[in-house]
Amino acid sequence: MSDHVYKAVELTGSSTENSDEAIRNAIAKAAKTLHKLRWFEVTDIRGHIEDGAIAHWQVSLKVGFSLDA
Amino acid sequence: MSDHVYKAVELTGSSTENSDEAIRNAIAKAAKTLHKLRWFEVTDIRGHIEDGAIAHWQVSLKVGFSLDA
Amino acid sequence: MSDHVYKAVELTGSSTENSDEAIRNAIAKAAKTLHKLRWFEVTDIRGHIEDGAIAHWQVSLKVGFSLDA
Amino acid sequence: MSDHVYKAVELTGSSTENSDEAIRNAIAKAAKTLHKLRWFEVTDIRGHIEDGAIAHWQVSLKVGFSLDA
Amino acid sequence: MSDHVYKAVELTGSSTENSDEAIRNAIAKAAKTLHKLRWFEVTDIRGHIEDGAIAHWQVSLKVGFSLDA
Amino acid sequence: MSDHVYKAVELTGSSTENSDEAIRNAIAKAAKTLHKLRWFEVTDIRGHIEDGAIAHWQVSLKVGFSLDA
Amino acid sequence: MSDHVYKAVELTGSSTENSDEAIRNAIAKAAKTLHKLRWFEVTDIRGHIEDGAIAHWQVSLKVGFSLDA
Amino acid sequence: MSDHVYKAVELTGSSTENSDEAIRNAIAKAAKTLHKLRWFEVTDIRGHIEDGAIAHWQVSLKVGFSLDA
Amino acid sequence: MSDHVYKAVELTGSSTENSDEAIRNAIAKAAKTLHKLRWFEVTDIRGHIEDGAIAHWQVSLKVGFSLDA
Amino acid sequence: MSDHVYKAVELTGSSTENSDEAIRNAIAKAAKTLHKLRWFEVTDIRGHIEDGAIAHWQVSLKVGFSLDA
Amino acid sequence: MSDHVYKAVELTGSSTENSDEAIRNAIAKAAKTLHKLRWFEVTDIRGHIEDGAIAHWQVSLKVGFSLDA
Amino acid sequence: MSDHVYKAVELTGSSTENSDEAIRNAIAKAAKTLHKLRWFEVTDIRGHIEDGAIAHWQVSLKVGFSLDA
Repeated sequence: MSDHVYKAVELTGSSTENSDEAIRNAIAKAAKTLHKLRWFEVTDIRGHIEDGAIAHWQVSLKVGFSLDA
Repeated sequence: MSDHVYKAVELTGSSTENSDEAIRNAIAKAAKTLHKLRWFEVTDIRGHIEDGAIAHWQVSLKVGFSLDA
Repeated sequence: MSDHVYKAVELTGSSTENSDEAIRNAIAKAAKTLHKLRWFEVTDIRGHIEDGAIAHWQVSLKVGFSLDA
Repeated sequence: MSDHVYKAVELTGSSTENSDEAIRNAIAKAAKTLHKLRWFEVTDIRGHIEDGAIAHWQVSLKVGFSLDA
Repeated sequence: MSDHVYKAVELTGSSTENSDEAIRNAIAKAAKTLHKLRWFEVTDIRGHIEDGAIAHWQVSLKVGFSLDA
Repeated sequence: MSDHVYKAVELTGSSTENSDEAIRNAIAKAAKTLHKLRWFEVTDIRGHIEDGAIAHWQVSLKVGFSLDA
Repeated sequence: MSDHVYKAVELTGSSTENSDEAIRNAIAKAAKTLHKLRWFEVTDIRGHIEDGAIAHWQVSLKVGFSLDA
Repeated sequence: MSDHVYKAVELTGSSTENSDEAIRNAIAKAAKTLHKLRWFEVTDIRGHIEDGAIAHWQVSLKVGFSLDA
Repeated sequence: MSDHVYKAVELTGSSTENSDEAIRNAIAKAAKTLHKLRWFEVTDIRGHIEDGAIAHWQVSLKVGFSLDA
Repeated sequence: MSDHVYKAVELTGSSTENSDEAIRNAIAKAAKTLHKLRWFEVTDIRGHIEDGAIAHWQVSLKVGFSLDA
Repeated sequence: MSDHVYKAVELTGSSTENSDEAIRNAIAKAAKTLHKLRWFEVTDIRGHIEDGAIAHWQVSLKVGFSLDA
Repeated sequence: MSDHVYKAVELTGSSTENSDEAIRNAIAKAAKTLHKLRWFEVTDIRGHIEDGAIAHWQVSLKVGFSLDA
């Protein structure tokens, strides 16, 4: 039970709505190809501005998953 | 008025809803035993993933309070 | 098209509602005097606590804009 | 002599005079309830400005003390 | 099951043996007064040198525990 | 009362006397053109050495001011 | 001989024994699918605590390998 | 001669050529409106990729100038 | 157009010529297997020295690419 | 005039008086053996506490000097 | 007793055995030429991998020693 | 072959030409007195500006060399 190994990949999700939604979009995308996702950690919160308002949010995160069979 | 002293403690709140709610949960918990809470600062935004979606958000924060009588 | 120059300023927005709204408030304020806003990056998420609850959120961000004519 | 354990708490002291005095104020306050204080380390030097001058200095520091009986 | 709140304290353990033992000493000390310890994270690995050899190791760590009843 | 927006600028003050005076010089200079200064935070403490002694101290700080009318 | 390109992946190994063993476990796992492993760098030393003692160590590391044919 | 005050602004220059040219472009732009530029410090080296090659380099830097009359 | 997801990988390129060439080599290598490369960010500039001169430059960078179909 | 080379050494000065005096002590000591000292930069401000008050201040700094003949 | 001055040098020790041994090797080497060694602090834990296993550990550390006569 | 010990010194090279040349100048200078130079790592890229253009580049780097006989 103890000697698990995990791998983390760095993703950036985006959303026109808000910062939490950008995170959810990145995880949903990752879940399509990576199974056994276990945790995430936000590393950067950014966004693009157009016409004086936020056009879309961009949140970078590390997503960890188990390498165990 | 000037020579106040503050102490900061490090908490991690969690929420199944979103990141801001995790912060509010941590502060609400702290407010039960610590009076004179004055400020907070987020130090980490994480979460656990189950079945390809966020099971709960975990936000770490420093919460500062006055040590004055 | 390539040799653009950008400037970034550091702002802190506040909101009684939530962290994303504090960001939007800072950008809306900046947009009144700075044109060609292009991006933002969050550098700090803080807030003030009164009576054991968040009185207002304070989010610091860098806001970048084009210096091109 | 070797297997001591220490705990560190994070304090913010303030002073209308100068930055060193803010540090001394925080330590004096801590010494009222914590015995066996051993060291401090400054983590942040800030202050409030009123009418174009420093109204009070605020210095954050970690203060370490022995947990040994 | 989801809205737990955790607190982290910062400790420094020491050992004449090695770095891992310094960590174990700090946790063993914490476990005497804090229940529901859940995790630790190393923040600093140091030591004192006497007569050209390591006299004792000093490892600082954050130790997290549940605030739930 | 809550939705204020602040801007921070980065200044470096110098002084032949000491580090606190370098901070005061930077703030005094800023106060001549910026009103509603609210806070400062030290980011760097440096200095120049001539003939084996400190010729002048140079302290960098962020100075925040209100953008509200 | 000079224009090599390397890729680094971020892994977390765990061990019930000690921190170095957690690192060895991560590298052993990586070596099963990645050839030409060249170096590692520790980025985080953590662990889980159960019943007041370390249940398992978790060490995060970057592992670099050659992309050359 | 000693009590000078400096201000630093954060710029991002770009270039299709190389990283040093992006720095020079940012400084040349700044020099058009800011006199008494004194120093710069690189804070970030980035770029955009198109068709598998660098389309333009983007280098962020702090540029300091004297506020003295 | 807004809900894109990107992935970043960490590469180290080398060159006997100069630092920018090491970056170009890493991106050229990545472009052979990864399509839709969008940006890079330098994280480390190093090199090996032989006989008192730089034998080759080694630059680490994050390279981001689109995960969209 | 332009192709100078400098070396920086890391020192820690101490003082029973205050933080600035600890810096001056370190520089005075360095000046006894190193000529052409040019600049310093503070990297850490610490101290030892005895009987609930600061026994001595310890400030770490980098001190740079010219290697030119 | 109070106005001591210390110098720190940055070393990297290596070992085929484990990380603590790499630290001990670096200190043993330093002790041959530097007297009055007082403390060390680990700054980096790395290593080389050959044939899918750790060939040797490389640990960087700052080692401080007294400059007093 | 494995238990080597290295020392790193911190240098700043300058050049009127470009950033890479400033690095080469620092290493060439170091090579005059230090043998067995093995690697370098850039820690800071700065420069002085005169009349609105870069007068000279200043690049700080750590240079490592073997302490083995």
